[in-house]
Amino acid sequence: MDDKVLVFGHKNPDTDTICSSIIATKLAKHLGYDAEAVRLGKINKETEYVFNYLGIEPQREISKVDEGQKIILVDHNEEAQSVEGREKAEVIAVIDHHRIADFTTTMPLYYIAKPYGCTATVLFELYQQHNLEIDKEIGTLMLSAIISDTLLLKSPTCTEKDVEVYNKLEEMLEINAKEYGLNMLKAGTDISALTAKEVIDLDAKEFMEKGKKFVVAQVNTADISDVFSRKEDISFAMEKEIADKKLDLFVFVITDIINTNSKIIALGEDKELAEKAFGQELDEDDSMLLEGVVSRKKQIAPPLLENL
Amino acid sequence: MDDKVLVFGHKNPDTDTICSSIIATKLAKHLGYDAEAVRLGKINKETEYVFNYLGIEPQREISKVDEGQKIILVDHNEEAQSVEGREKAEVIAVIDHHRIADFTTTMPLYYIAKPYGCTATVLFELYQQHNLEIDKEIGTLMLSAIISDTLLLKSPTCTEKDVEVYNKLEEMLEINAKEYGLNMLKAGTDISALTAKEVIDLDAKEFMEKGKKFVVAQVNTADISDVFSRKEDISFAMEKEIADKKLDLFVFVITDIINTNSKIIALGEDKELAEKAFGQELDEDDSMLLEGVVSRKKQIAPPLLENL
Repeated sequence: MDDKVLVFGHKNPDTDTICSSIIATKLAKHLGYDAEAVRLGKINKETEYVFNYLGIEPQREISKVDEGQKIILVDHNEEAQSVEGREKAEVIAVIDHHRIADFTTTMPLYYIAKPYGCTATVLFELYQQHNLEIDKEIGTLMLSAIISDTLLLKSPTCTEKDVEVYNKLEEMLEINAKEYGLNMLKAGTDISALTAKEVIDLDAKEFMEKGKKFVVAQVNTADISDVFSRKEDISFAMEKEIADKKLDLFVFVITDIINTNSKIIALGEDKELAEKAFGQELDEDDSMLLEGVVSRKKQIAPPLLENL
Repeated sequence: MDDKVLVFGHKNPDTDTICSSIIATKLAKHLGYDAEAVRLGKINKETEYVFNYLGIEPQREISKVDEGQKIILVDHNEEAQSVEGREKAEVIAVIDHHRIADFTTTMPLYYIAKPYGCTATVLFELYQQHNLEIDKEIGTLMLSAIISDTLLLKSPTCTEKDVEVYNKLEEMLEINAKEYGLNMLKAGTDISALTAKEVIDLDAKEFMEKGKKFVVAQVNTADISDVFSRKEDISFAMEKEIADKKLDLFVFVITDIINTNSKIIALGEDKELAEKAFGQELDEDDSMLLEGVVSRKKQIAPPLLENL
């Protein structure tokens, strides 16, 4: 078991999860915890852009935790999205911006969640409450997380608070946030070197509710047809995942970050759930265009969960 | 459905739950919500003392909420302790100091929980963060809640933060907190006018986990033998409750607030769970003295839950 308190975000880490675990670790240290930021998977191209920009290295990767390990969770709480062994670990704190589900403790804990667009926005407030300085590195990590989770403030998950913090950080960092953000988002859309399996794993979240198990995976792009041209390979990889993980449904979401639309591919025994959830029929190729839909958290997961 | 956001604590309300719902309502109004404090049951003698001291009336009582009702929970999160109809209500926020269990939402929300001795201590911090003035009434409600939940700072649930806030409030209110607190606690121990059924209902919490259903009810006293002299009637009322609610276990805790010990009575099919949890055998009369044990949350519920 690690003596330190391990701080990490969800599996298939995205930019918010990776950046927020580093940001939260600095706060935990400030509050007297011997904390270390770790991660539950490979960083993606978008996050790589952030690390290269700052000239820093990604944190250590772990795959499970031992019994009694002290942990702090950021950017998630659901069991299926968390570390292996968590049920026997001791959760000291959670800092999050998602719904709460499948999360149980035996002891009281710190749980700070707000319905903002990004975990880093919650952390910005906590830094201010604790009078903790936001230096260039921490500020850039915060800004990058907000840009990533809100698609440069264009996602419906983006709140006034996210915009306010984005503006403050842009001023503090003396950076052109829009230019930086577009470059960062574009770096994340480059999937040319990835296999279909890697593409569907890139940002996949698993949900378990009412006895049903399903995955919603998402990929950002500047051109939907670019990704959709690989549909055959992607569907094949999805079918394999459904068989391997005994999923009832797999929804793959291709999100156009320029025009803020998404095309989804739905496979699995319960694929009519997607039709019910979005009030449209799937095309013959199991796909459906969702106008104005970009957010898994706000526009895709809730209708699926409500129609279970 | 009520247009207002309803703010309430747990069933069988205690002083923290009642006071914190009023304190949280003022904060919610300050943040722009049209909020109203309500309660899920009769106030107890201890809380009555607080209301009489302040010359104010208890809030309105409700028994259930309609579908879509906007609600804010304080001092609890577990389904079994909350309002009827909650599964179809919209939880906007939770302010709490308990473990998290049996709590699921479909949408993100405000969830502010800290492992402090009292919900009002969490609220004190929130008032400070939002620069909201703590007047005499709100301050007295906060102090009363802290005194009640920490047994005048003597419970093991009491944290440094509770002590700090207690001291600040004592100074702000220009009150002798110990004298006020002892009078308040003593007012709460007067159960002479209550039936045995009312005594076991006074501060009962229901738990549901791993298919087991159990209740831990607690009563404070200045003299355990005083309450224990009514054991026959109390056991009878407990047996009836076990039958009516199909409980696997009922633990009744008589807590000596002067010497900080508790005597428990354990009944139900799973009463050996109490023996396992506390590492002692029950006496022939199904009772057991627990030296130094005063906190259901920290010293009674966790060992029971861990030995399920």
